[in-house]
Amino acid sequence: MLDVCLLGTAGMMPLPYRYLTSLMTRYNGSSLMIDCGEGTQIAVKKAGWSFHPIDTICFTHYHADHISGLPGMLLTMGNAERKEPLTLIGPKGLQKVVTALRVIAPELPFEIRCVEIQEPEQVFYLHGYKITAFMVRHNVTCYGYTIEIERQGRFMAQQAQQYGIPKNYWGILQKGDTIEYEGRRYTPDMVMGPPRQGIMVTYCTDTRPAESLVKNAAHADLLICEGMYAEPEKLAKAKQYKHMTFYEAARVAKEASVKEMWLTHFSPSLVRAEDYMPKVRDIFENAHLGRDGKMAELNFPDDSADIS
Amino acid sequence: MLDVCLLGTAGMMPLPYRYLTSLMTRYNGSSLMIDCGEGTQIAVKKAGWSFHPIDTICFTHYHADHISGLPGMLLTMGNAERKEPLTLIGPKGLQKVVTALRVIAPELPFEIRCVEIQEPEQVFYLHGYKITAFMVRHNVTCYGYTIEIERQGRFMAQQAQQYGIPKNYWGILQKGDTIEYEGRRYTPDMVMGPPRQGIMVTYCTDTRPAESLVKNAAHADLLICEGMYAEPEKLAKAKQYKHMTFYEAARVAKEASVKEMWLTHFSPSLVRAEDYMPKVRDIFENAHLGRDGKMAELNFPDDSADIS
Repeated sequence: MLDVCLLGTAGMMPLPYRYLTSLMTRYNGSSLMIDCGEGTQIAVKKAGWSFHPIDTICFTHYHADHISGLPGMLLTMGNAERKEPLTLIGPKGLQKVVTALRVIAPELPFEIRCVEIQEPEQVFYLHGYKITAFMVRHNVTCYGYTIEIERQGRFMAQQAQQYGIPKNYWGILQKGDTIEYEGRRYTPDMVMGPPRQGIMVTYCTDTRPAESLVKNAAHADLLICEGMYAEPEKLAKAKQYKHMTFYEAARVAKEASVKEMWLTHFSPSLVRAEDYMPKVRDIFENAHLGRDGKMAELNFPDDSADIS
Repeated sequence: MLDVCLLGTAGMMPLPYRYLTSLMTRYNGSSLMIDCGEGTQIAVKKAGWSFHPIDTICFTHYHADHISGLPGMLLTMGNAERKEPLTLIGPKGLQKVVTALRVIAPELPFEIRCVEIQEPEQVFYLHGYKITAFMVRHNVTCYGYTIEIERQGRFMAQQAQQYGIPKNYWGILQKGDTIEYEGRRYTPDMVMGPPRQGIMVTYCTDTRPAESLVKNAAHADLLICEGMYAEPEKLAKAKQYKHMTFYEAARVAKEASVKEMWLTHFSPSLVRAEDYMPKVRDIFENAHLGRDGKMAELNFPDDSADIS
């Protein structure tokens, strides 16, 4: 099970009742955050989520509205008595930006590990998450992220019984380890079925429509996508500032065949956003407006039907 | 007339419904801010005040909760199309801290002038404000500020008539300029009475009780003072972390003979603050709890009684 919480939905600047766009996920005791703007720590508290389990913070890029909350977040995590290392992931320049911002957060009770993305597309495995960073099309280097919880294959009990492996060894094989029993060697692939469908969320702000986005969001359970402008006449502005309209985001969702899309990263000028949604849903039906604190619980697909 | 707005009341970290402690004042078209923490720009919007007229931001010290909102504030002021220079005042190190934080706010449409305080007590005159910075007692170099709107003496019309100065020259003398008329020279002091009582606000956070604070707050119309802890048993903690209890703040207010005091910079652990106020008012009667967005309009004392 993966919990996701869209902490905020603002682009450019935080507003009363609209925090800056940021995502937080919880999986198996480890939390992950994407972007941390001014006020994001307040949004975490409002959502009732905890600072202590945040093991990873990914940054899309270094415009202030996506990273200005980092010093305060680090201090608050320190106050929450974090001792374990924290991994920060972001485009090149991360170490420089973090070092500069830490002028006001120099002393922390935990280690910070900065990981700079080197490739246009790069995969990281951390705390049970598969994180794919993929470059998008903004006016500075900017990445989207696909977060996956992979699911291993089913344990084939009949197979294990045929091999004559005692039940108390089954768990070891399930965890991916090899055993030796009565002079014979058993490997996990002998008793595990093929990997099953996992959970997949794609998060992307600050970009024009991009092939890399469509590719990396393909068949996602949830696409959280920027829609800076709702008014169709703001398409020129979207092109100028390298953002998307609601309709462009909907076309991305459709092309990527995602199951559901939430729009976020709204322009401060956006009001009455719901008025524009019928036309968005003409393009992609399962499109929803993000709102601060919007949560979802994503589960592995129910595959009880195929139990042998 | 001086408008003051206590934008937030939190110490250490921002909370939902409790922004970080910051003060904003408006006088004669120029706004001044003291401290700018994470979320302060949201508090400005909530108060309904404007970014454009902020000409001066003073910093007490460089702990994150007092300056972490600066990059976002600068960008928002830029978006509000500010073109005029902005003056920042703070303890030594200001230039270094501002330069570091601007890694995420490098391009602004206005100039920033950093003024580092050199003396334990130093006076600045800016945009009609008299600003006195005075060093207090925290675990890093920290200053309190007294903001004054000085008031010139009354124009003595009878005196001007006796000199035979035509009425159309009176305004020039009132503004402090000298005139020549029919071969004679008239200076302002010939027609202006002695300076009258102005408006005075003292703002102080992050300190133990200090003589410099009592001295610089003497007879202020309003003292906005830190009270990190309300519980009497937290006195030891207050001493350890160089803060004050409500009762210590009340004694400062009493010793300084201020007219009114607002408490602020509350510990995140503080709840039911009103329960502690009766004992605070036993020490200093006109003590009030600060709250986010608390405003006052301070006027020159009514001196109609002494009109001759």
